[in-house]
Amino acid sequence: MRQKITLKHIAKELDISISTVSKALKGNKEISEDTRLKVKAFAKLYNYKPNNIALSLKNRKTKTIAVIIPEILHHFFAKVIRGIERVANKNGYQVIICSSNNSFDREVINFEMLASGSADGFILSIAKETLQNQDYHHITETISQGMPVVLFDRVADGIFCDKIIVDDTRGAQDAVMHLLAQGSRRIVLLTTVDYINVGNLRTQGYLRALKAYDLEIDETLILKIEDVDNCEGEILSFLEEKEFDGIFAVNELFAVLATKAVRLQNKSIPDDVAIIGFSDGLLSKHASPTLTTVSQHGEQMGEKAAELLIHKLENQQQGLEEYRTIIIDTELIHRASTRE
Amino acid sequence: MRQKITLKHIAKELDISISTVSKALKGNKEISEDTRLKVKAFAKLYNYKPNNIALSLKNRKTKTIAVIIPEILHHFFAKVIRGIERVANKNGYQVIICSSNNSFDREVINFEMLASGSADGFILSIAKETLQNQDYHHITETISQGMPVVLFDRVADGIFCDKIIVDDTRGAQDAVMHLLAQGSRRIVLLTTVDYINVGNLRTQGYLRALKAYDLEIDETLILKIEDVDNCEGEILSFLEEKEFDGIFAVNELFAVLATKAVRLQNKSIPDDVAIIGFSDGLLSKHASPTLTTVSQHGEQMGEKAAELLIHKLENQQQGLEEYRTIIIDTELIHRASTRE
Repeated sequence: MRQKITLKHIAKELDISISTVSKALKGNKEISEDTRLKVKAFAKLYNYKPNNIALSLKNRKTKTIAVIIPEILHHFFAKVIRGIERVANKNGYQVIICSSNNSFDREVINFEMLASGSADGFILSIAKETLQNQDYHHITETISQGMPVVLFDRVADGIFCDKIIVDDTRGAQDAVMHLLAQGSRRIVLLTTVDYINVGNLRTQGYLRALKAYDLEIDETLILKIEDVDNCEGEILSFLEEKEFDGIFAVNELFAVLATKAVRLQNKSIPDDVAIIGFSDGLLSKHASPTLTTVSQHGEQMGEKAAELLIHKLENQQQGLEEYRTIIIDTELIHRASTRE
Repeated sequence: MRQKITLKHIAKELDISISTVSKALKGNKEISEDTRLKVKAFAKLYNYKPNNIALSLKNRKTKTIAVIIPEILHHFFAKVIRGIERVANKNGYQVIICSSNNSFDREVINFEMLASGSADGFILSIAKETLQNQDYHHITETISQGMPVVLFDRVADGIFCDKIIVDDTRGAQDAVMHLLAQGSRRIVLLTTVDYINVGNLRTQGYLRALKAYDLEIDETLILKIEDVDNCEGEILSFLEEKEFDGIFAVNELFAVLATKAVRLQNKSIPDDVAIIGFSDGLLSKHASPTLTTVSQHGEQMGEKAAELLIHKLENQQQGLEEYRTIIIDTELIHRASTRE
């Protein structure tokens, strides 16, 4: 069997990025004319077919769902997968998982591999780099060729498909409102840099809650963290210089590290400082004190995503295109890091 | 395209287990004659071919490695996958992951799906139920048909293939020797029930260390836990009744729960009680006090597994069969739950 030529092959052969190949094939003027001609000539020579997905689709049902997640080392995504597997297996589907490692190229390669015969549809949380690039051609082309895609958690407006999201803004707002209600007034926000969508939405929730209490925003209480994997020192020294009686962290790790820092300052939790994190994983449950946190109901997200995808797979060929966006409610899990 | 008949189809159609179908096809006398005849008739009628793996093998290279792990919600396996992905991607291979959820049937189904065209080879950690059943036909058949398999962590003696293991007994022994060296004498062992291989091996290490110090084994200090997911109460009440000055736990969760229990008793860690866990995940790193633990070097295991598999894939068709077993050294990571 002759091997099928893919975007990846072309990119490798011409030593350019997959994104450039994709744009060149579509005649995008961002790409130099020279490169465009080269890519098109190469694609023609090797008979590159962007539409091979639809061909394989008509001929077979694999009864397999492909899941692509941004990171494998992440409790939340593991929980979502558990939910997907539960519903998929109950309905006679198998699940295969790939990680994009937050890389655009890897996400595209995963799509190419899985769309050409290994799976019937996709459940996807978009890679960080793809969100930065705002290049969703691999997703939109897959959808336009009739292969259903369900996005969850990290989604993008420009893609028309079923989506499962958490109301991050609302979840963060509820958390900060709780800190305010139990008496905190100077609330530190530990968040990520702005281009990370979920961090941004949770920051909005923080701002809204302060506004609801007619409090002024003190920008010096907000720390935007770039290097999420190595931020212990940054959080420690930030909190050393500040006066505060509450902390809201947009993820679990920030909250645990903040707890450590506060204890090092010999302040009591929750009496001197109340703390709430986001995402209900093992760390929050087993931290000391145990952490109050916003739960995203990962397993439920996974179940819903699988239900939507299977529904699409088993009710195809209806004329009307209709996409649903389901918002999963967050829930504040009360533990020992906040007062009643 | 006519759908291929699989063990799963036969099992479903005749309402018996996949294991029964497999045994019946091989004429195993454990299975009633009536069932054997039915299965064989059905297989013949639908032209079931157990050897379809080899056929597809000759025709294509997918440049894809299939990884099957027992659990998705497990930091150690996620780390192994990261190691596999690093080496695989560097060598131009993609990785697809499936979870067996510790179920024998699901592991067999994953093998059938992935072996028939989606992947070139397997990296596998065996499901708990498969280890209990001791039925490895899906693995040995795949190997005998020329598709390489590398086992890691949860392996079985009866399967001839490359293996990457941790010396669990040695790792546990080192940990308990450290507890003894820093002065602990009455050391609690928190372990799993015996049929879990790794728990068992780590228990052996505990016993060996005590023997090296000429200490008698006090069986009342050993707790064998059946329900790993709901053992907080069990650990708490076990530790309430005992006198002890050290704890060795065969996994991270047991160690963290033990830490909680000891603190509830107002004992100081490490002065009154020193604690060591097994498996170096986030919980150990962020517990308070931080936990001394036996690291299994999950990423390194994954890297080695991928190297062995790719080596096999790219050097096939040599007459001689040769399998390697690589033992990855564990390492004691010293943190605040033990003295120097």
